[in-house]
Amino acid sequence: MATLSDIGVAAAINILSAFAFFLAFAILRIQPVNDRVYFPKWYTKGLRCSPLANGAFASKFLNLDFRSYARFLNWMPAALRMPEPELIDHAGLDSAVYLRIYLLGLKIFVPIALLAFTIMVPVNWTNNNLEHSGLTFSDIDKLSISNIPNGSDRYWTHLVMAYAFTFWTCYVLKREYEIVAAMRLHFLASEQRRPDQFTVLVRNIPPDPDESVSELVEHFFLVNHPDHYLSHQVVYNANKLSGLVKEKKKIKNWLDYYQNKYERNPSKRPFLKTGFLGLWGDSVDAVDFYTAKIERLSRDISTETEKITNNPKSIMPAAFVSFKTRWGAAVCAQTQQCRNPTTWLTECAPEPRDLYWENLAIPFVFLTIRRLIVAVAFFFLTFFFMIPIAIVQSLANIESIEKTLPFLKPIIEVKFIKSFIQGFLPGIALKIFLIFLPTILMIMSKFEGFISLSSLERRSASRYYFFQFINVFLGSIITGTAFQQLNHFIHQSTNEIPKTIGASIPMKATFFITYIMVDGWAGVAAEILRLKPLIIYHLKNFFLVKTEKDREEAMDPGTLGFNTGEPQIQLYFLLGLVYAVVTPILLPFIIVFFGLSYVVFRHQIINVYNQEYESAAAFWPDVHLRIIVALIVSQLLLMGLLSTKEAASSTPLLITLPVLTIWFHRFCKERYEPAFVRYPLQEAMMKDTLERAREPNLNLKGFFQNAYMHPVFKSVDEDDVDVAMEEWEVEPSLVATKRTSKRSTPFSSKHGGSTLSLPEANNESSKPENA
Amino acid sequence: MATLSDIGVAAAINILSAFAFFLAFAILRIQPVNDRVYFPKWYTKGLRCSPLANGAFASKFLNLDFRSYARFLNWMPAALRMPEPELIDHAGLDSAVYLRIYLLGLKIFVPIALLAFTIMVPVNWTNNNLEHSGLTFSDIDKLSISNIPNGSDRYWTHLVMAYAFTFWTCYVLKREYEIVAAMRLHFLASEQRRPDQFTVLVRNIPPDPDESVSELVEHFFLVNHPDHYLSHQVVYNANKLSGLVKEKKKIKNWLDYYQNKYERNPSKRPFLKTGFLGLWGDSVDAVDFYTAKIERLSRDISTETEKITNNPKSIMPAAFVSFKTRWGAAVCAQTQQCRNPTTWLTECAPEPRDLYWENLAIPFVFLTIRRLIVAVAFFFLTFFFMIPIAIVQSLANIESIEKTLPFLKPIIEVKFIKSFIQGFLPGIALKIFLIFLPTILMIMSKFEGFISLSSLERRSASRYYFFQFINVFLGSIITGTAFQQLNHFIHQSTNEIPKTIGASIPMKATFFITYIMVDGWAGVAAEILRLKPLIIYHLKNFFLVKTEKDREEAMDPGTLGFNTGEPQIQLYFLLGLVYAVVTPILLPFIIVFFGLSYVVFRHQIINVYNQEYESAAAFWPDVHLRIIVALIVSQLLLMGLLSTKEAASSTPLLITLPVLTIWFHRFCKERYEPAFVRYPLQEAMMKDTLERAREPNLNLKGFFQNAYMHPVFKSVDEDDVDVAMEEWEVEPSLVATKRTSKRSTPFSSKHGGSTLSLPEANNESSKPENA
Repeated sequence: MATLSDIGVAAAINILSAFAFFLAFAILRIQPVNDRVYFPKWYTKGLRCSPLANGAFASKFLNLDFRSYARFLNWMPAALRMPEPELIDHAGLDSAVYLRIYLLGLKIFVPIALLAFTIMVPVNWTNNNLEHSGLTFSDIDKLSISNIPNGSDRYWTHLVMAYAFTFWTCYVLKREYEIVAAMRLHFLASEQRRPDQFTVLVRNIPPDPDESVSELVEHFFLVNHPDHYLSHQVVYNANKLSGLVKEKKKIKNWLDYYQNKYERNPSKRPFLKTGFLGLWGDSVDAVDFYTAKIERLSRDISTETEKITNNPKSIMPAAFVSFKTRWGAAVCAQTQQCRNPTTWLTECAPEPRDLYWENLAIPFVFLTIRRLIVAVAFFFLTFFFMIPIAIVQSLANIESIEKTLPFLKPIIEVKFIKSFIQGFLPGIALKIFLIFLPTILMIMSKFEGFISLSSLERRSASRYYFFQFINVFLGSIITGTAFQQLNHFIHQSTNEIPKTIGASIPMKATFFITYIMVDGWAGVAAEILRLKPLIIYHLKNFFLVKTEKDREEAMDPGTLGFNTGEPQIQLYFLLGLVYAVVTPILLPFIIVFFGLSYVVFRHQIINVYNQEYESAAAFWPDVHLRIIVALIVSQLLLMGLLSTKEAASSTPLLITLPVLTIWFHRFCKERYEPAFVRYPLQEAMMKDTLERAREPNLNLKGFFQNAYMHPVFKSVDEDDVDVAMEEWEVEPSLVATKRTSKRSTPFSSKHGGSTLSLPEANNESSKPENA
Repeated sequence: MATLSDIGVAAAINILSAFAFFLAFAILRIQPVNDRVYFPKWYTKGLRCSPLANGAFASKFLNLDFRSYARFLNWMPAALRMPEPELIDHAGLDSAVYLRIYLLGLKIFVPIALLAFTIMVPVNWTNNNLEHSGLTFSDIDKLSISNIPNGSDRYWTHLVMAYAFTFWTCYVLKREYEIVAAMRLHFLASEQRRPDQFTVLVRNIPPDPDESVSELVEHFFLVNHPDHYLSHQVVYNANKLSGLVKEKKKIKNWLDYYQNKYERNPSKRPFLKTGFLGLWGDSVDAVDFYTAKIERLSRDISTETEKITNNPKSIMPAAFVSFKTRWGAAVCAQTQQCRNPTTWLTECAPEPRDLYWENLAIPFVFLTIRRLIVAVAFFFLTFFFMIPIAIVQSLANIESIEKTLPFLKPIIEVKFIKSFIQGFLPGIALKIFLIFLPTILMIMSKFEGFISLSSLERRSASRYYFFQFINVFLGSIITGTAFQQLNHFIHQSTNEIPKTIGASIPMKATFFITYIMVDGWAGVAAEILRLKPLIIYHLKNFFLVKTEKDREEAMDPGTLGFNTGEPQIQLYFLLGLVYAVVTPILLPFIIVFFGLSYVVFRHQIINVYNQEYESAAAFWPDVHLRIIVALIVSQLLLMGLLSTKEAASSTPLLITLPVLTIWFHRFCKERYEPAFVRYPLQEAMMKDTLERAREPNLNLKGFFQNAYMHPVFKSVDEDDVDVAMEEWEVEPSLVATKRTSKRSTPFSSKHGGSTLSLPEANNESSKPENA
């Protein structure tokens, strides 16, 4: 039970550390040498040139204009200045809608907080239950529901508030769903011609003894979609080839490193040892060694390429089928093709750069088996992850280290180091696990067989949310591992569960306030510093970069990271909704989180992140669903809490809330979700008609030529992107791009791709603010 | 705890009563006067003429050929003789697949019973737990799991058996799903051209200020399906008109009654009183009175018809849109048309006779609200239905009757009557409720807004199953009302629930054996007697029938009644699966039920029932799902039972069973369900191509002219069917029908309809066995 002043101190510390991060960012940001770390987005869009090119030598690396240091927070208004339509042009719809999640948080919680502080806090404050209870209590508890005596009529206020908050949340959610759906449809409608609009991915093509996959696909679609079928592209199993190409790239980096070393110090040729980790073995000339290795790999790659193109076994039973019209593609994607619903599976093709090629060939039966395996594995991961960690912890103590590595003994026995290790070791296994958790979840999703990066990230996000819900939210409220909770709940009566959790909720308010400040305030402020990319960029810059192109590759703009970012936001929605009625003092902290994150991430999206794909906000149904889940959880917990408070007469009124919320969710799902899943024929027809009128003699076949070629084939002949570019430049554009883009957004991602239309881009306001 | 001999006595009684029913049926059936009650199917198919037409007078009504009495059970082999393909031609796929549910029961339970009796019964029998327990027990209990001492290793047998039974059930289910899906697709593929193959039902057409619904539909589909759209038919709101037509039909019956009366006794014109129930009021000539009334109604009907056709407000925002090809219709039904997913909702049009016209105009928002209301209402119906019944029961006691109707007092006070009423009254309210339950559930489904009779019946069936599961199955095991159970379960820990139920399962075995014999043996045997239709037919025949056509209308062949029959079968699946491991002695009783029902219903389907619609076995996914549910329930209850038996080490092994079963269900759902929901494009294209090759100059437009006219318009001009017939006869047939059908099956149902192809009908074997 922390007092208000305790929380004040914690707040001060976190605010100070946040400010420290901002200050560091402000200083690092305006150094020209860091320009590519803090403004990579503008480089990839070709709107900013290297500041190293001109000016005095010192000013190439340090900013000597001291006036610019004074305005160290001016990035904040600048980040807010870009209007939303331009933001969509600049960074894509995914990013723009992702920012709306933070706005949604503000829209939901600001009115709720106002209402709670004008009505509920006075009701709570004017009691003296705690004073009479003889328990120790703090001012914060006086503001919470704990201050109301059992069986009091004042609980009606909380009941009414619960209704008001639910209705307000649902209203905002519905409006937001409506807006996002409209934005998505508008975005899709105003897009330029892209191959994925005309293309359908066909999977599980049944084997045929007489025909090759390619012939089979052609015949099937010529028969069943005679008026619309145009062409197709088979999918090759190029997993081995991509391994080789990746290997080659790595070796090339080493070669560059040694060549740079040699150039800087031409007197001494660099040598290396060929054995394990370069620690022993024969000493050879490094440049020659790697040059030879690259030559060997290039030979292997060309052999493998030939093998793939000539061997029919390397063709997977999947194909990209292109149609003459968007209408034809929309029809094919939404219908069932064959009697056997597990063959000839069609779906809208993802963007080429969104594809996860490795999973294209998994047959149907394996998909269902894999799903079962992953479901079971995830269950064990969530509820039993503490077991292996506890084992590691028990092994990784000082005694066993001393036993296995006796030569470390004298160092360990130093008192300071010993206590450090003893305090540090038990936590490290857990910490490492938590750092790798998103990766583990991503591997699970990949194993499960999703075929686009966007769906992989969405799936990982829902798993991560569930894990956090169980292990962070419930785990903090009911201390104990998830398995202990599970065991506890199984042995408890059904209506006891919300009671148990509900009753301990008010007591955990201060814990969560601290959590919000550390994770939500300081954590978000740290995000803007980009410490890891900063270090890596400078390392690469020093060791590997030779040409301007290398420098461009050394940039790591990163992405939003939907699979980790969104579940984090959702945790705040959950906390806000759960504590809105119970301990409203938590709400301002959450509002600060949402506001701060909005500004920070808007800045990052404008200046830094470069999305790998564009799913046109396909994740919104997930976001909506999880807020609904949080709402229902908050209602159930309030019900449990009130029933321990002997306000049982409120139970029937509280039960109707989740029923209504579930119904609301179903309504929204039916009303808005189809916009995120299917492409309406009316829209497709409209775009087709418009296009036919504008360009009657369009040659679409050429347009599709290599759109869905495996990226590895493009990159085989080295420096792939430029080759792909040439094909793309031929493409006529509906809306002329005003920006003279050197490398427009979509190309910059790994797998080559497609272009977005950038209507009426306002060059003035979209320039980065650079003093 | 009944002994074996108790059960033997009960079995004898029920077998005897079943035989009595069969005997009565055998005698009544061969009386010519009952021919239309026991063979209506053949009359509606036009394959049997009235036996009244020829022969001696006495033999018109009574069968005097005494040899035929000797072979009184010969209908059984006859019922089994018709091969399945012919059965499908004769009675439709729905009926044929419905019979397969009984066969499925046999396929599942016969091997399970064999295995149980060879392995599990000896294991149970060779213990002496009960003898040492000091409890009273019977031989039946010695055969059950109760005879095994707690913590015994013998429970491994039951565990292995549970696995074996689950795998066997799943294997049979999967095979059956596969077969039924193939049958459905074959049936659809071999069907003749029917309007519903080319037609899509469009609902929620948005209002347009400038265009009428008809123009709007035409423009929308001309734009969005330009190559495929052919014509459309708007839907009129003719609910009032159908009321008038129904009223007229009723009045006409009365007129017929009085005319008959007058003809039989021409000396005295029949009079009637116009007041309440004909008890008082002015006395008028009945024939004149009703003739005048009919005239007035006919005038009203023609005014109303005119009003509907001229008033644009009576056009509902729904339409039937017909396409040039099946491919076009399949595409339109499976795709989303408009940005707003709640307008222009398309789905495959049901057969005209399957349509439930009243629900065609419900807008989307109301649909979701109605669904919520029905869900809540059904919840209360299931768990609180005892409350109003208890109130009625408390009111309907002898004292209150004597108070309200004092003149009955002397009669009631007679001792015999008094005790009869006292024993009878409390039960009657419950009995009446249970009789009306299917109707109540059907009204709920209608309120919910389903638009076809088949979906109404499917929905009612699932509700009825749920009600039975809660109130019959759980209600019998844990005595007490559903609400008490619910309350009990809420206050109980989650893993206690299967324990509580599981532990009382073995004790209820004898109760369920009796239940099966009464409901499943005698009840099924009573079904074949058709007592209610028999009485009604003879009443109508005596009072109303004038012409042969009237006699045809007096026949009430009835239908299978999916909404009541299927849940009953499912209860037996549930009992069988739950008791297979616990008390295998129950299995033979269930096998007898399945065998007997199969024969009885096969006979009824061949000779009696006339389906109102043909959904091509669209109900199979529901059947499959419910058996899976029964399987999972049985696994959970076994887990609960074994954990009370201190065989807790088996729990982890038992938990994997439901996980695997759920996974199996999901696999089947994805693999087979689409065949029941969507029409594959390949199939559509194949039929289209075939048809185009055979009849290049087909005029489809005329074919659709009145296919989806509201049935009431057809019947307005009296004797609707013949008019509809004429239109139909024009239709060219792919496979010539060998039977010269006077009124082929589909026409005979209420709403007019379509024809089925009857390839290679074998006239020999399909004739009814008539000695």
